[in-house]
Amino acid sequence: MGQVPASAAFASAAFASDNAAPAHPSVLDALHRANDGSAPSYGADAVTAQAADAIRTAFDSPGADVLFAFTGTAANTIALASATRPWHEIFCSDVAHVLVDEAGGPVRLSGAQLTRLPSVDGLIAPEELERRVRGRGAVHHSQPRIVSITQSTESGRVWTADAIAEFVDHAHALGLLVHVDGARIANAVAALGISPVEAIADADIVSVGGTKNGLLFGDAILVRRPEHFDGIHWVQKQIGHLASKHRFIAAQFVALFTDGLWLRNAEHANAMARRLSAGLQGLGYQLASPAESNEVFVRIDGDALGHLTRAYLVHQPDHNEPVVRFVTSWATTEAEVDDALAALTR
Amino acid sequence: MGQVPASAAFASAAFASDNAAPAHPSVLDALHRANDGSAPSYGADAVTAQAADAIRTAFDSPGADVLFAFTGTAANTIALASATRPWHEIFCSDVAHVLVDEAGGPVRLSGAQLTRLPSVDGLIAPEELERRVRGRGAVHHSQPRIVSITQSTESGRVWTADAIAEFVDHAHALGLLVHVDGARIANAVAALGISPVEAIADADIVSVGGTKNGLLFGDAILVRRPEHFDGIHWVQKQIGHLASKHRFIAAQFVALFTDGLWLRNAEHANAMARRLSAGLQGLGYQLASPAESNEVFVRIDGDALGHLTRAYLVHQPDHNEPVVRFVTSWATTEAEVDDALAALTR
Amino acid sequence: MGQVPASAAFASAAFASDNAAPAHPSVLDALHRANDGSAPSYGADAVTAQAADAIRTAFDSPGADVLFAFTGTAANTIALASATRPWHEIFCSDVAHVLVDEAGGPVRLSGAQLTRLPSVDGLIAPEELERRVRGRGAVHHSQPRIVSITQSTESGRVWTADAIAEFVDHAHALGLLVHVDGARIANAVAALGISPVEAIADADIVSVGGTKNGLLFGDAILVRRPEHFDGIHWVQKQIGHLASKHRFIAAQFVALFTDGLWLRNAEHANAMARRLSAGLQGLGYQLASPAESNEVFVRIDGDALGHLTRAYLVHQPDHNEPVVRFVTSWATTEAEVDDALAALTR
Amino acid sequence: MGQVPASAAFASAAFASDNAAPAHPSVLDALHRANDGSAPSYGADAVTAQAADAIRTAFDSPGADVLFAFTGTAANTIALASATRPWHEIFCSDVAHVLVDEAGGPVRLSGAQLTRLPSVDGLIAPEELERRVRGRGAVHHSQPRIVSITQSTESGRVWTADAIAEFVDHAHALGLLVHVDGARIANAVAALGISPVEAIADADIVSVGGTKNGLLFGDAILVRRPEHFDGIHWVQKQIGHLASKHRFIAAQFVALFTDGLWLRNAEHANAMARRLSAGLQGLGYQLASPAESNEVFVRIDGDALGHLTRAYLVHQPDHNEPVVRFVTSWATTEAEVDDALAALTR
Repeated sequence: MGQVPASAAFASAAFASDNAAPAHPSVLDALHRANDGSAPSYGADAVTAQAADAIRTAFDSPGADVLFAFTGTAANTIALASATRPWHEIFCSDVAHVLVDEAGGPVRLSGAQLTRLPSVDGLIAPEELERRVRGRGAVHHSQPRIVSITQSTESGRVWTADAIAEFVDHAHALGLLVHVDGARIANAVAALGISPVEAIADADIVSVGGTKNGLLFGDAILVRRPEHFDGIHWVQKQIGHLASKHRFIAAQFVALFTDGLWLRNAEHANAMARRLSAGLQGLGYQLASPAESNEVFVRIDGDALGHLTRAYLVHQPDHNEPVVRFVTSWATTEAEVDDALAALTR
Repeated sequence: MGQVPASAAFASAAFASDNAAPAHPSVLDALHRANDGSAPSYGADAVTAQAADAIRTAFDSPGADVLFAFTGTAANTIALASATRPWHEIFCSDVAHVLVDEAGGPVRLSGAQLTRLPSVDGLIAPEELERRVRGRGAVHHSQPRIVSITQSTESGRVWTADAIAEFVDHAHALGLLVHVDGARIANAVAALGISPVEAIADADIVSVGGTKNGLLFGDAILVRRPEHFDGIHWVQKQIGHLASKHRFIAAQFVALFTDGLWLRNAEHANAMARRLSAGLQGLGYQLASPAESNEVFVRIDGDALGHLTRAYLVHQPDHNEPVVRFVTSWATTEAEVDDALAALTR
Repeated sequence: MGQVPASAAFASAAFASDNAAPAHPSVLDALHRANDGSAPSYGADAVTAQAADAIRTAFDSPGADVLFAFTGTAANTIALASATRPWHEIFCSDVAHVLVDEAGGPVRLSGAQLTRLPSVDGLIAPEELERRVRGRGAVHHSQPRIVSITQSTESGRVWTADAIAEFVDHAHALGLLVHVDGARIANAVAALGISPVEAIADADIVSVGGTKNGLLFGDAILVRRPEHFDGIHWVQKQIGHLASKHRFIAAQFVALFTDGLWLRNAEHANAMARRLSAGLQGLGYQLASPAESNEVFVRIDGDALGHLTRAYLVHQPDHNEPVVRFVTSWATTEAEVDDALAALTR
Repeated sequence: MGQVPASAAFASAAFASDNAAPAHPSVLDALHRANDGSAPSYGADAVTAQAADAIRTAFDSPGADVLFAFTGTAANTIALASATRPWHEIFCSDVAHVLVDEAGGPVRLSGAQLTRLPSVDGLIAPEELERRVRGRGAVHHSQPRIVSITQSTESGRVWTADAIAEFVDHAHALGLLVHVDGARIANAVAALGISPVEAIADADIVSVGGTKNGLLFGDAILVRRPEHFDGIHWVQKQIGHLASKHRFIAAQFVALFTDGLWLRNAEHANAMARRLSAGLQGLGYQLASPAESNEVFVRIDGDALGHLTRAYLVHQPDHNEPVVRFVTSWATTEAEVDDALAALTR
């Protein structure tokens, strides 16, 4: 996994991932408020209804169904498994979380074939889809069904409003559904300065990240065309993501979507990434890909890499390449960024 | 599902289930303490190690592996799916949660055949196992692999130390592994006044309930013979139950297993169930099964049933029978019990 | 498995099963005729079209889709797996082949829960269905989807035209699809003296046996309501039952359905079973269930059982009971029956 | 699928595929000989033992287990599904049958992730394996388990004895098992003029083709290291490939492996392919890949393509490229080859 070094008790997790961050105080406060007496379980409580409404409103999707899951892996897996039957084909980029970081969960649960498409930092050209979507109707081939894209991507890039709109329309024209893995959708929205719905275009289903954006845990699923995700509530239940004390997942989302906290958290994380990437470039380091959201991929090797990994837990996506990932979060401070830069000053 | 009535905004959830209860204040406090700066994710943090140790110690199982899942359904499914291959057979009682309340998750994930055994209130006679375990080695038959029992049972009964020891030994003699669904294991331990390890006997893997006993969410998996559950960490990851901000599930278990809170919570719930069942019998109602832990099943029909279900969300296990389930929790008060009894006084 | 004795080189397989029988000469002749030059593969040949038509005509089902599989286990599994999604529930009798003799294949492929219903020799009372079909719409429960019945049953009984019509209508009224495992459908039709379509009533999908009725191998699937079995051709392909040299499975069915060979074969087998059962009763043996088709279940124990199993491979369904199964086939001769009776004369 | 044209009643299937060929007369004769009286089913007959021995002997693998399946898709799927658990990763080439021509069956049955590796005409460089096998031990990644290669490849190439030995050893050194899809293994052995065991090197499991080499149907599975394919007999049974009248699949293999018929059939097919490829090159056509076994891939476009596809059913692997596949078989005649060449003479 390139989590380096696994044993270093003194290494800082400040840039290891946005899931190394704590929960936002407003989120903990919301848990306290929700912890009042008994409440119907499994989502039949008032807080759940409120959370679902807040997400529908934020994404301008009044007819959508909203479900909650404990993790992003689960949100993605539930979305893909309910869209597919075992003779279907799922497409994603060559760096997609659903392909490389979920231990094969989406394949296991769907039984479907998962086909990776070449991408530039997770951004897939519509023509790649065109080249790969084939065999429709032929009994010897898995049947193309859904493509999953990530906004912002696992490599820290964002799909612009135009780019994602074109891609989604192209996929639809090819008869595919579109899933957006939005584990960091807030970072994309904040980075682009567009409305949330522009950041997902006409996608059919969206994993809306919470864990990486200030929650203790929790990712939502925004089902914008429920007719294509028949049985999704059963899939959620079967893999243990229908929370019994459901108010405690819902309350966190209510906090996140109140007064724009989700976008403020994301914008802060993005700003810290900009500070970090500017600083690294100022020190002469080269970015491996444009740092457009809250992830910074930078080439570091030799002694500098040694220094870095003694002080910080950081992820190296590929052991064959001297590229290191920094992730910032709502909780990252300027001081933390500056300390990291200092440690890397040669 | 017999959750009656679904729409009643004014009905109390006080006895609907132990997952309608709030979280214990000590558990919320623990979340606050854990919410301090960044921490390694996916369980590489210090709180997780502490929680695992606490559970190993409580169950006198020093060599066990401990994993955490967000829900009891997940804990059971992970345990059963990692024990089995798709040509295996799983056994359970005719009222088992894994059979009737998990939407088929254990079957879906394992691919294995699930065979129900006759039981008395969830307690299975060893001879039933003997009668049903067959076809070993025959290619036409699913291969018997594991039996799941529930302590305390879904019908509110407890396996005594002798009964569970005999059953587990018998299952082992038949070449079966044994899983204990311990969603309410604390209630059984408290009710029997025995040590935790006596309540699970020589079982190979145990789902240790947390959600129903004062947590916001979380059930642990105690893997006492890890060699039979190869790959269990991947199953956990694949279905989205490896928490990224893992300290937040672990901290709750630390609170629960500190100073015996888990058993105090359970004993309180049991005491409230005793008060309720005694009261109901005093009012002339007949119990449908002995109320040995924190669930009370009672025959109520006619006008009394109407009154009850207008005031309370309660579960009716079988629509064909006028039996209603009350569940008490760590948070149930004597006043709540007495109010319910008053509502049922004829 | 009760195949006794496994090692006896000299024991006769004459009554072991109808799949111990050879292929009918007309079937081998048809293979010769089909083996002429090259032909399009995967069913695009003329013989396949002819076979499908013959089956549609025999069962008076002009709008049906017809597929072929190499074995009865495959035909059943393809039917059930294409009807279901992993949150569905399948029902069958407690002696169903899909439950006890297919190594869990239908569960593995569907991911669905398989619920056994009490039966009398494989005949299920409609009320049993009524009692067990529940939880519809509830997310905690597998969703009732399809019931599989067997005609003639695994215990040698037949559903009369009235009984099967009532059962199928009742299942439909409960919102269930109906599958008929017709591995021995020809024996039922011949025994009842009714038209084939009366023997399947309004069932939605039927496994039409060939292997047990004179083929080398091959069972067909008659899909009478294709709209409920979306993707069935992909399931067939995925598990390797879309024959590449498809003419060789189709040609056998053409032979079987030409000039009523399928019913003549079955009637002969039934007649041999009647001769055997009458003879056994004449010798003082007691039948374990009425011998209504080509299977005879008879109570034999003590010395007689020893004599029998030294001379014949026969199946004992349950080791706890001294009941032995004889199966007759298109190839059974009167002399073979009489020899068996002689061996059992006390 | 590029089977062109689907509707042409008058187009010849002579070069469509080796599964468009008829069965060899010796194979039909063997069926006749096997069709003698009753015989134990499910492989307990004498012919099955003889067939398994013949295959073990041919491949110099005395300790191997041998199973039979009705199709090559099934043989591959059974091999891969029994080698893997759902958190495993399977590797294959980008043109592998298991990837592109089995409708996702291997993924569905195994639940494992299937990763395609770049290849030259199906031949994979060991370094590609090295680059892709990663994440071992990491819970976020599917675990590398087995690589499937095809001999001869789907593009008509052969692995030399040295090349396959090096590849298999390399895979083993990386901790992978090796599966050989030998649907056309005979063509490779014949082409290379080496012993069968040299053509599979130290592979752990081999699908041994029969259907494409003169049988009516049937592919065998040679399990050379049974300890890694635990439960394979149950997988075979579950998907309906344990033949009940097993003698009829076994008898065909006995015929094929008697007096070297399997290699004579293959050598004839190879010779016809050589005649065809030489002729095509003589006519000025360019081969798309070296024609090393019984498949010829040639660039044909414009009017010539039109003429060809009106007269012959031929496969075009990729609609974007004017490449056509010819397959020869044991039954292809010189006259057929010459007719095809005449049709393509400009």
